[in-house]
Amino acid sequence: MRVLIIGGGGFLGQKIARSLAASGTLRGEPITAMDLADLAAPPPMDAPFEVACHAVDISDATAVSALFSSRPDVIFHLAAIVSGQAEAEFDLGMNVNLFGSIHVFEAARALGTNPVVVFTSSCAVYGGEIPEKIEDYTQLNPQTSYGAQKAAAELLITDYSRKGFLDGRAPRLPTVTIRPGKANAAASSFMSSIFREPLQGEEAVCPVDPDYALWYASPRVTVANLIRCAEIPAASFGENRGFALPGRVGTIGEMIEAMRKVAGDEPVSRIRWEKDQRILDIVTGWRPHINPVKARALGLAADASFEDNVRYFLEDDIRR
Amino acid sequence: MRVLIIGGGGFLGQKIARSLAASGTLRGEPITAMDLADLAAPPPMDAPFEVACHAVDISDATAVSALFSSRPDVIFHLAAIVSGQAEAEFDLGMNVNLFGSIHVFEAARALGTNPVVVFTSSCAVYGGEIPEKIEDYTQLNPQTSYGAQKAAAELLITDYSRKGFLDGRAPRLPTVTIRPGKANAAASSFMSSIFREPLQGEEAVCPVDPDYALWYASPRVTVANLIRCAEIPAASFGENRGFALPGRVGTIGEMIEAMRKVAGDEPVSRIRWEKDQRILDIVTGWRPHINPVKARALGLAADASFEDNVRYFLEDDIRR
Repeated sequence: MRVLIIGGGGFLGQKIARSLAASGTLRGEPITAMDLADLAAPPPMDAPFEVACHAVDISDATAVSALFSSRPDVIFHLAAIVSGQAEAEFDLGMNVNLFGSIHVFEAARALGTNPVVVFTSSCAVYGGEIPEKIEDYTQLNPQTSYGAQKAAAELLITDYSRKGFLDGRAPRLPTVTIRPGKANAAASSFMSSIFREPLQGEEAVCPVDPDYALWYASPRVTVANLIRCAEIPAASFGENRGFALPGRVGTIGEMIEAMRKVAGDEPVSRIRWEKDQRILDIVTGWRPHINPVKARALGLAADASFEDNVRYFLEDDIRR
Repeated sequence: MRVLIIGGGGFLGQKIARSLAASGTLRGEPITAMDLADLAAPPPMDAPFEVACHAVDISDATAVSALFSSRPDVIFHLAAIVSGQAEAEFDLGMNVNLFGSIHVFEAARALGTNPVVVFTSSCAVYGGEIPEKIEDYTQLNPQTSYGAQKAAAELLITDYSRKGFLDGRAPRLPTVTIRPGKANAAASSFMSSIFREPLQGEEAVCPVDPDYALWYASPRVTVANLIRCAEIPAASFGENRGFALPGRVGTIGEMIEAMRKVAGDEPVSRIRWEKDQRILDIVTGWRPHINPVKARALGLAADASFEDNVRYFLEDDIRR
């Protein structure tokens, strides 16, 4: 079992890699080697198997093709230009999120082995004129370029799977919070930073009102779900490889109160409230009320409470 | 007002061109010139304005860019690899239906004038695990490569429109019947040929049962709808430029009885029934029960009866 993680330098890619290094198995087989690829080569990682790290720009089809010379059995494709940047730099978003994904799908197809490809789509594919409550059969109606590119790539991974070119799985991630690391250009970046920074003694800015509601999942649950997505038998996915992952609905205000329960008043006092119209324009188009029937039937899970998410962050990710 | 019709050599492109030549206006302005482009240059056409004909392969971005040197104000993009061929020749379908469409969108964007682009999507974008009755907010869940490529291009034309790069309109065509000309590689080709050939004294093969139901529209109504799609104000489309056109639901058996009412028993006797699994595999994934609320609100129309469609064929298209 050879594993390739594209976007392997990001926080989810790193967590998946560490989880696989700890278990040593995937799809019931021992992992013999892992490749981690990102725009900058990820750092080396201790594991009970060989780990190779690569710098690859997925918008370059030739580089992607070369990356697949390791003939991976399972590919996690997490690489993306995030929502805020894809909105500001349209062509870059197209080149990475759409064409880069097609390069990955084509390289997987070229192996001729029907490899498993787990592609992280996003709940940013929902938006616009659709019913308030989102079902598995609700139209993908993205109102951002990031969402449109993810949705188009989903359609293709389903079709590549139907054709037998690859065995795709395209879970739509909820907003992953509390994510570790630094703020980034994702419009959703504040949905982690308003917890992450205060929990570490720093200030953070919240650009939306406390009643802004989001659909979220912790990094810990998300990583477990993504690994499980690689393990589910192909036949279980039916006629569409894209589906919403389970999550929780919460308002920013409720999530802040959960942080208060776990960590006291002091972190809450470090949040500064300052509206940001550019972020509001993007995130108010997202939808929090999602009913992920298919994903639940596939055995994928949500967090139990945001208090848990705060605890997971303190256990897994806080700077020590 | 300069008009460009890509796929201008096809039956819909030719009918749109002739209709515009007859009216001489579009969007309330006199047409000053029209370009017709297709893989083989369309034949010259009489019109009260200059008509230029071009051979262009839209999978070639440079050729598409050159085609746009006429700086069109309205573009009809009808060019496609049809369903049966896109299923058999996957790469060709991707290169024309997806990448070719992106080349058209990019060339329109490069004009910098926010031109109107009418892109013919298809009800082949529906399929798989979705409710029996399709609403405007039902997921696009295509079960063919043709449908996947059309659905992906729809997502992009909506995003290009949102960004102000072009003013897109992506009506999903019902099965257009009775279409003139010859049978082609579309899996739906029989849905015209079983009427067209018998009405002209020839035999035709029906590869499905009489109770097979389809969602259809006549060429005459489809052309009027496509021209109207170019004329509707941009603001009326809301947050998605893709939408199902109105149509009618009918079974093959009901449609044959309609032909009998208009043209007697003789044509009906020329239909031979012969199942074709390759065609069944594609067309049984299509969905006939569509509720096009948005399109009706936009003033787009359906036929009144299939008897009308037979009469339109006899008036407009029969070989004389």
